Amino acid sequence: MTRVIDLRSDTVTRPTPPMRAAMAAAEVGDDVFGDDPTVNRLEARAAALVGKDAALFVPSGTMANLVALLAHTTPGDEVILGDQSHIFQYEVGGVARVAGLVTRTLPNLADGSLAPDEVERAIRPQTIHSPGTRLLCLENTHNRCGGAALSAAATAELAGVARARGVAVHLDGARMFNASVALGTPVELLAAPCDSVSFCFSKGLGAPVGSVLCGSREFIARARRFRKLLGGGMRQAGVLAAAALYALDHHIGRLADDHANARHLASGLAAIGPFRPVPPQTNIVVVEVLQGDVDDWLRKFEQAGVLAVSFGPGRFRMVTHLDVSRTDIDEALARISRVAGATVH
Amino acid sequence: MTRVIDLRSDTVTRPTPPMRAAMAAAEVGDDVFGDDPTVNRLEARAAALVGKDAALFVPSGTMANLVALLAHTTPGDEVILGDQSHIFQYEVGGVARVAGLVTRTLPNLADGSLAPDEVERAIRPQTIHSPGTRLLCLENTHNRCGGAALSAAATAELAGVARARGVAVHLDGARMFNASVALGTPVELLAAPCDSVSFCFSKGLGAPVGSVLCGSREFIARARRFRKLLGGGMRQAGVLAAAALYALDHHIGRLADDHANARHLASGLAAIGPFRPVPPQTNIVVVEVLQGDVDDWLRKFEQAGVLAVSFGPGRFRMVTHLDVSRTDIDEALARISRVAGATVH
Amino acid sequence: MTRVIDLRSDTVTRPTPPMRAAMAAAEVGDDVFGDDPTVNRLEARAAALVGKDAALFVPSGTMANLVALLAHTTPGDEVILGDQSHIFQYEVGGVARVAGLVTRTLPNLADGSLAPDEVERAIRPQTIHSPGTRLLCLENTHNRCGGAALSAAATAELAGVARARGVAVHLDGARMFNASVALGTPVELLAAPCDSVSFCFSKGLGAPVGSVLCGSREFIARARRFRKLLGGGMRQAGVLAAAALYALDHHIGRLADDHANARHLASGLAAIGPFRPVPPQTNIVVVEVLQGDVDDWLRKFEQAGVLAVSFGPGRFRMVTHLDVSRTDIDEALARISRVAGATVH
Amino acid sequence: MTRVIDLRSDTVTRPTPPMRAAMAAAEVGDDVFGDDPTVNRLEARAAALVGKDAALFVPSGTMANLVALLAHTTPGDEVILGDQSHIFQYEVGGVARVAGLVTRTLPNLADGSLAPDEVERAIRPQTIHSPGTRLLCLENTHNRCGGAALSAAATAELAGVARARGVAVHLDGARMFNASVALGTPVELLAAPCDSVSFCFSKGLGAPVGSVLCGSREFIARARRFRKLLGGGMRQAGVLAAAALYALDHHIGRLADDHANARHLASGLAAIGPFRPVPPQTNIVVVEVLQGDVDDWLRKFEQAGVLAVSFGPGRFRMVTHLDVSRTDIDEALARISRVAGATVH
Repeated sequence: MTRVIDLRSDTVTRPTPPMRAAMAAAEVGDDVFGDDPTVNRLEARAAALVGKDAALFVPSGTMANLVALLAHTTPGDEVILGDQSHIFQYEVGGVARVAGLVTRTLPNLADGSLAPDEVERAIRPQTIHSPGTRLLCLENTHNRCGGAALSAAATAELAGVARARGVAVHLDGARMFNASVALGTPVELLAAPCDSVSFCFSKGLGAPVGSVLCGSREFIARARRFRKLLGGGMRQAGVLAAAALYALDHHIGRLADDHANARHLASGLAAIGPFRPVPPQTNIVVVEVLQGDVDDWLRKFEQAGVLAVSFGPGRFRMVTHLDVSRTDIDEALARISRVAGATVH
Repeated sequence: MTRVIDLRSDTVTRPTPPMRAAMAAAEVGDDVFGDDPTVNRLEARAAALVGKDAALFVPSGTMANLVALLAHTTPGDEVILGDQSHIFQYEVGGVARVAGLVTRTLPNLADGSLAPDEVERAIRPQTIHSPGTRLLCLENTHNRCGGAALSAAATAELAGVARARGVAVHLDGARMFNASVALGTPVELLAAPCDSVSFCFSKGLGAPVGSVLCGSREFIARARRFRKLLGGGMRQAGVLAAAALYALDHHIGRLADDHANARHLASGLAAIGPFRPVPPQTNIVVVEVLQGDVDDWLRKFEQAGVLAVSFGPGRFRMVTHLDVSRTDIDEALARISRVAGATVH
Repeated sequence: MTRVIDLRSDTVTRPTPPMRAAMAAAEVGDDVFGDDPTVNRLEARAAALVGKDAALFVPSGTMANLVALLAHTTPGDEVILGDQSHIFQYEVGGVARVAGLVTRTLPNLADGSLAPDEVERAIRPQTIHSPGTRLLCLENTHNRCGGAALSAAATAELAGVARARGVAVHLDGARMFNASVALGTPVELLAAPCDSVSFCFSKGLGAPVGSVLCGSREFIARARRFRKLLGGGMRQAGVLAAAALYALDHHIGRLADDHANARHLASGLAAIGPFRPVPPQTNIVVVEVLQGDVDDWLRKFEQAGVLAVSFGPGRFRMVTHLDVSRTDIDEALARISRVAGATVH
Repeated sequence: MTRVIDLRSDTVTRPTPPMRAAMAAAEVGDDVFGDDPTVNRLEARAAALVGKDAALFVPSGTMANLVALLAHTTPGDEVILGDQSHIFQYEVGGVARVAGLVTRTLPNLADGSLAPDEVERAIRPQTIHSPGTRLLCLENTHNRCGGAALSAAATAELAGVARARGVAVHLDGARMFNASVALGTPVELLAAPCDSVSFCFSKGLGAPVGSVLCGSREFIARARRFRKLLGGGMRQAGVLAAAALYALDHHIGRLADDHANARHLASGLAAIGPFRPVPPQTNIVVVEVLQGDVDDWLRKFEQAGVLAVSFGPGRFRMVTHLDVSRTDIDEALARISRVAGATVH
C-alpha cells in the first residue's frame, strides 16, 4: 500500500524513538499536588524561554487560550480579536460560552495582524451602558492567514495601543517558534510586548500532547485554578512534559526545514495547474483552487495518498512538519501532478 | 430660570395629560397570570401592527433585545451584528454575559446597514470546531448611524442572505416608527423579512415606560419565560400599557414634525460655526465638532440651557421629540449661537 | 355573574382610585439619566425605611433578587439558600443561568428559617478545588413556608454566622412589611443584620408594579449597572414610583387586617372538611388537602368563584390582600362550604 | 533519608516499568482527527466494559464529569446531586460556572447514597417559574463518604426514581472498579441503571493520566464537541491510552489488596490513640481526630515521612494504592505510633 503523506496539520506528528525514550524515563509525580518534577522543570523552562515569570502546562492549545481568557477577564468584559483568529474560528466559542466575553472582531489583515488604528478605535472603557475592553488577542504565526509571522515590531505596536489604554494583551503563540525561526527573532522578543503567551508542543515541535501558558506569577496562579475548573489538571503529566522538553531541546532549529519544504511544496503546486498557493512564510501553505471543487480535489488527493484539509471557500491547506521529508514533498507533488493531469486534461 | 431644552434623547418625554388620563383609567389585572386586559390588548395590537403572531410587553428596549437573543439561540451560538448597533454598544454586553453568544461584529455602513456580502461570508455552520451562526441582528432606525432608516428592500436583502442559510433575523426596531414615517413605508413591511422585531413606546412615541417584542407564537412563548428569568414580569402593567396604546393612537403621525425639527436643527447648527451635522433622516442629529473639545461644548450648552450627549470621539448627538417644538429648536439654536459666538470669536 | 374572589396571590391587587390619582399627578423624568424625582424620592425613602444607604427601584421582586445576586458575587461563587426559597423555587434558575452561582440548598425549617449550624457547616472558603461561599440568602416572610415571619433575633443569628465568615447576607424581604406588622418589629430591625434587602410594592402593599433593592452606596452602584444589563432600566418610572410612595403612606398599617382575614379564612377552612390549613402568621394560608385531588378542588373552587393556586403535592395556597374584605372571606368560605358539601357527601 | 509513604490519594501512583514500556510502544495518531488507534481501542474497550455504546477519553475525572453535565443539559436546567459529591465539593463549581446549572444539593447519607424519597421530592418539571430537573448525579465509590460502595440495587433504585420522571442519571464512577471489587459486582451492572458513567484510569488503576466518559452514541458525539470546547482534545493521546489499557489488563484484580491494606491501616490507627477511623469498604480511610488539631497531626506525620490530607473539620484521609505495600502500611503505622506516643503522652 502507498504510504500516506499527511499534510493536514503539523499536529499529526508521532513521537520519535528518542522522544519516546525520554517519556519512558521521565521522573513523575502528581502534578495536581505540584509534585511532578518534569512538569515543574518544563514550566520553568518555558517561562524562561519566553521571558515570563511563570508557566502552566495544559493538554491543548485551546485550553491554553481559554484559561488565558478566563484569567485576564471577568464575565461581561470585552475582548478584541481578529475575525480569522484561531480563538474565534476554531475554539468552539468558549470565549463566550465559557468565559462570557463580548467578542469585538476586527478583520485580520492578510499578514495576520490587525490595523492598529482599528484596535485603537475599538477599545472602550466600561460604563453603565457598555462592557469595557479588557483584552486584545494576537496570534503568531497566524494559522488562517497562511502561517504569517508577526514581527516583534508589529507585535509591540499593537500591544502598545492596547496597554496604553489599560488593556491586557494575550498572544496565541501556538506556532511562535515557527515565527521565531522564520523571522530570526528570539521568542522572548516576540512575547515581550504581551502580558501572556501560549505555545504548543504538539504542533511543529512534534510532541504528542500539550501546550503551555506563560505570564506573571499572579496570572498563572489564577490560570491554575481555571485549568482545574475546565478539567485540565492532570496527574503524572511528566510523561508528556518529558516529550515537550525533548522537543525544546531538539526540534526548534529544524523548523527551518519545514519552512523550506513549505516553499518547495508551494512552488511545486503553482507549477502543477489549477492551484494558486499563497507564498508561505513558515510551514503552512494555503492554496486557492482555480478550477473545480475543493472537496473533490481533497478526495482525489486522498485516493492518491496525500492528505490536506479544506480551508474556507475555494481553498485548502497543507502543512509541513517533522514527519514529512523533502522526499515526501516531492512524492506528494508527483501524486498531485498525476491527479491533476488526469483531472484537468 | 431658563427652561431647559432637553435634546439628549427622545426617551426624556413626559406623558401628556390625556396620556396620563388613559393610564389613570386603565383596566388592569395581574399580567404574570396573563390577566391584564390592557396589556393583552396592547400585545395583540402591537403584533398585528408589525404583522407578527404574538407580542410580549417588557420594561425596556434592552430587555426586548435580550429576550429576543435568548429566545432565538442557545448559549455558545453565534450572532452577527453591526459594530455600531445598540445591542453591541449600549446593552452592557448582555449578549455574551447573559445569553452566552459569540458576537461577530461587522462594520456598520454609514446608513446603518451591513454589507450583504460580508454577512454572507460571516455566516458559518456549527461544527466540532466552531459555533454556528444562529442569528443576524439589524437596527432600524440606526441610533449610532444618526437615525438612518433602513428601507424594506435593504432589510429584505440582508434578511434574505441570513434566512437562506437558516439564520434567524431579529430587528431592533426601537425607533421603527420613525423609519416608517420617514420612508413612507408601513412598519409591517419593514418587519416582514425578519423573524422577530422589537420596538419602544418610550422613545419617539412618548410613553413613559415599555417596549414590545413580536414574533411567532412559539417564539413569544419562549420569550415570556426568559422575560421572567430576567425579572421583567410585571403585575398590573396595564397602567403602562394604556400609555403605550394611547401613543399608538396619537403619536405616530406626528413623528414627521420631529423629523422636520431635526432637519431645521441640523441646518441651524451648520450655520453657527464649528459644527458639521450629518444630515438627519429622522429625529437624530449627530454633529461633528470641528473645533474644541466635545465635553467642553456640552458643558457650555448645558449652562445655556440646552442638553445634548457626547457620541463617540469628536461628536455629540441631539434628538428631537414630542416635548420640543419648532420654537424650542429656534431657542436652542439661539442659545448655542450665543455660546459659539462667545467661544469661537 | 358572581364576583370572583381572587385569593391566588396578593400580587393581584388593583391600584385604588387615590393611588391612581397619585400616579396621574406624578412628577417624572428620565430615570436612566437619574432625572426622575419621584423615583429618586422613593429610593431615598425606601433606603431610609430599612436603614440602608441607598436603593434601586426595579420592575419586579425577581429582578431585585437577581440584581442582588449579581452585585454580591462573581460567576463561580457559591450562594447558600433554602430549598423552599422563592429564589430557588420560582425565579427560573437565574441564580445559575444568569449569575453563574453554585447553589447550596439547605432544607428550610417549617418556620422558613435555616438551621444556623447547617449554615455554619455549609460555608467554605474558595480554594483551588472549590468555589467559595460568598452569599447567604434569607426570606421574610417566607412564601413556601406559609408566610412565616422571621424574627429580628433569628435573622441576626443566621446573618451573624455568615458574616463572621466573611459571607454577605441578602434578605429577600418581598413581604417584609407583613413580617414587621406580624412581629411588631420595625423593618429596619429586620433588615439590620443583612447587607442587602429587597422588598416589593406590588404584593401586600398594593402598588401595581415594582420592587426595591437596598444596600450600601457601592453595592447599589454595582446593582444599577446590573439592572441595566437585565433590561430593568425604565424611563419615566415615576408613574410607578408614585404608586409605591402612596402604598408606603397608606397601606402598611392595614396589613394587620389581611393577617386577621387569613386567620379567619384558615379557621373557616378547617371547619369545612377535608382541609387542614397551616395556622397563618401573616397573609398566606397554606392548606393541606386530606381527601381528593388538589387540582380537582381548585377547579371546583373556580367554578364557584374562588381562586387559589396549587402549592406543592397535596396542598393549595390562598392569600389575603387589599382587594378582599372580611365579607369576601366569609363569602369565599360559604362558596367553598357548598362545594365541599356537594363533593364530600 | 526516610522513604516517604504517600497516602494522600491513589492519584499519586507512578507508572510501573511494564506500563511505561506499553506507553513507549504505543501506536499513535492525531486523536482530534479520530486517528489514534490506541485511543480508539481504549474507548471501545471502556464502553464495552461498562455496557455502553461509546466512550470518550479525557484528561481528568473533573473533565469527564463536566463534559457529562454539558452533554446532558442546557444552561438553566437543574441537577440533583449529593452535598458531599466530588462534583459539588472538588470541581471548582464548573457545574454552575461553565454548565450554568442550578444545583439542588441533597444530604449524602453515610453510605454515599441519597434518600430515594428526597430525590423523588426534589425532582420538578420545567415551568415558567422554575428550572426543570434534567439530571441526577451519583458517585461510586463515594470519596467524601470514605470510599463507600453503592450496590447495583441501590443504584437501580435511585436511578429508577429519576428515570421514571424523565430525569437522566450520570454516575461519577471515578473509583467504580474499587466498588466492583469490593461488592463482587461487575462494573457493567453498577453502570446499567445510569445513562452515562465516567471512570478514572489515574486513581486506583495506576495510570498516569486520563479518564473516560461512556454513554450512548449520540451522547458521546455531543460530549466530544464539549471536550473540544473545554480544551480537552489531545493529539497523540495514545501514549496515555496505552497506559490505561495496560491498567485495565493488570490492575483491576489487585484492588482487593488495596482494600485489605486499608482495613489493616484502619485497625492499626484505631489501636494507636486519638484516632477513630471509619471502617473502610474500599481503599479510602477517613479518620476522625479525637484529640488535637488535624493540621498539627498532618504536619507531624509528614515529618515522620507519612503523607495524608485534611478532610473536613476534625478529619483526615488516607488512601491505599498500587505504590504502597502491606509492609509500607506497617511502616506507616509504626511511624504514626511514634508520633502519637510522643504527642499524646
